[in-house]
Amino acid sequence: MKVLLAALLFAAACCQAQPLPSWSDGEAKARIVTFVQAVTDEKSRDYVAAADRVAVFDNDGTLWAEQPVYFQLAFMAEQIKAAASSHPEWKDNKAFKAFMAPDKSELMKMSHKPLLALVGVANSGMTVEAYDKTIRDWLATARHPRFNRPYTDLVYKPMQELLAYLRANGFKTFIVSGGSVEFMRPWAEVAYGIPPEQIIGSQQEVKLETRDGKPVLVRGPKFAFVDDGPGKPVGIYRSIGKRPIAAFGNSDGDLQMLQVTMAGEGRRLALLVHHDDAEREYAYDRKSRVGRLDEAWDEAKARNWVVVSMKNDWTRVFAFEK
Amino acid sequence: MKVLLAALLFAAACCQAQPLPSWSDGEAKARIVTFVQAVTDEKSRDYVAAADRVAVFDNDGTLWAEQPVYFQLAFMAEQIKAAASSHPEWKDNKAFKAFMAPDKSELMKMSHKPLLALVGVANSGMTVEAYDKTIRDWLATARHPRFNRPYTDLVYKPMQELLAYLRANGFKTFIVSGGSVEFMRPWAEVAYGIPPEQIIGSQQEVKLETRDGKPVLVRGPKFAFVDDGPGKPVGIYRSIGKRPIAAFGNSDGDLQMLQVTMAGEGRRLALLVHHDDAEREYAYDRKSRVGRLDEAWDEAKARNWVVVSMKNDWTRVFAFEK
Repeated sequence: MKVLLAALLFAAACCQAQPLPSWSDGEAKARIVTFVQAVTDEKSRDYVAAADRVAVFDNDGTLWAEQPVYFQLAFMAEQIKAAASSHPEWKDNKAFKAFMAPDKSELMKMSHKPLLALVGVANSGMTVEAYDKTIRDWLATARHPRFNRPYTDLVYKPMQELLAYLRANGFKTFIVSGGSVEFMRPWAEVAYGIPPEQIIGSQQEVKLETRDGKPVLVRGPKFAFVDDGPGKPVGIYRSIGKRPIAAFGNSDGDLQMLQVTMAGEGRRLALLVHHDDAEREYAYDRKSRVGRLDEAWDEAKARNWVVVSMKNDWTRVFAFEK
Repeated sequence: MKVLLAALLFAAACCQAQPLPSWSDGEAKARIVTFVQAVTDEKSRDYVAAADRVAVFDNDGTLWAEQPVYFQLAFMAEQIKAAASSHPEWKDNKAFKAFMAPDKSELMKMSHKPLLALVGVANSGMTVEAYDKTIRDWLATARHPRFNRPYTDLVYKPMQELLAYLRANGFKTFIVSGGSVEFMRPWAEVAYGIPPEQIIGSQQEVKLETRDGKPVLVRGPKFAFVDDGPGKPVGIYRSIGKRPIAAFGNSDGDLQMLQVTMAGEGRRLALLVHHDDAEREYAYDRKSRVGRLDEAWDEAKARNWVVVSMKNDWTRVFAFEK
């Protein structure tokens, strides 16, 4: 209890002093701070009780990088490679060939359905514990092709600060990602301060079986839930049961989550991260196959949502930058 | 922040003084307290970090009463009655007739499948907000047939104390119920201190639609997930992503949840509430159609799980008792 109190006092002290140090003093930061002050000030007409201060964050491209391909795809390619010898029938499978090609451009052009079908099979049959270990092992050794660092180094420092700032102001923070929950759970608590039970994502079916006399959960080949696009508000409803008052995304897959957040009563915040910094990170939007920002960008402009320019609004992108 | 600190200090002070006041000084209480002390004592070999102190509770028959029929069934009968005029095809439907009969004994004998199919249709088509309102309205006016009180008065005082005691010792408490999440969310935070996002339950499908130009979530007729029996460990895995270290139930529907909890490493606690108090509540077990306790009871005996006698271990059952 003492540790918890100390942590709370520290969090309160640290982040009221100078919130969001990696953010430039521009419009984006000002609008975030104004919003947080308004909903936490008991005298404000925009005041929101702490229990309803729910903030949801997309992961890929919002909290960490997603280029040149979604990091989970790189992991899944490994899984597919590892499973290939048990699946001779994949030989002529288009999705399999695209996954195995050194150049991932074909992969990014394919429709989701055959990819998910292959991914589902390759990521099934094992217990959830065995699968978790595979992910942890991969994360420990895999390196990002451009930055030559563990993928988990590619989290955005300004967003880590934003998460901590919101929590210091009584918010409960959730990830709502198109990626699989299993892929985020091993590292999100350290990287973002978000525990496994506050991560919403896509899920393959799991089933209770008995192996060696013990009850175990075994992964099935089908997706039970795809948490993307219109699936995101559904995932939020299922897992949180409250409409968020703040939503953070970066691509068209986040559009419905932001729309549903903003459709509620009272003061709300919608924010899009725009990747316009090829030097420190990547520059892409309307035409990208990964994290396309097109329709959601138009909506953000039409509705005056906050659009963050990584180049101008963030004084630093990654913690490892000098 | 000040309010939160005060609440934490109060919680710490109140519950360390005299834990579980509505529990008799018997074996059940002693084993709970010993377990909590062991996993929270940093010097103990059984110590568990706070982040892993996950405790899961069945709801019906474990946290509140479930006789003469699951309370949600009484609500659903109302929903079916209200929807009947739009469904002339139900006239000869067996499940419909069983729901409409004043005597619910036929209903309790039927298999789940046709009941769920009917319930699904009757509880669909509306937005999630409209459905939530129906539940709140029903809870505000419906009365338990024996106690003539709102159903939410039928929560067990000793279990409320147990939830608070666990939380004061750093546990995170979750409901894992065969009932629908929607039916618990409106009142569980007040009754148990468990917020909507820590309630796992059965779920009908919901879908994002546009109505009157606004994005809304609309309930579909099918069940997306049934959180009972072997479904409970699956629901826990999906929503929490950690194996609980303590599980509390009362019937065969909780067996797999308790088994999976106990199959982990380290010290764990499994507890069953045995309804043996016809005077203050109800007495039922192996032959009951509601909350049958048969296979799980044998397992509890074989594995030395804690079995609570409501009659002997609880000095009071409900808060409204004199």
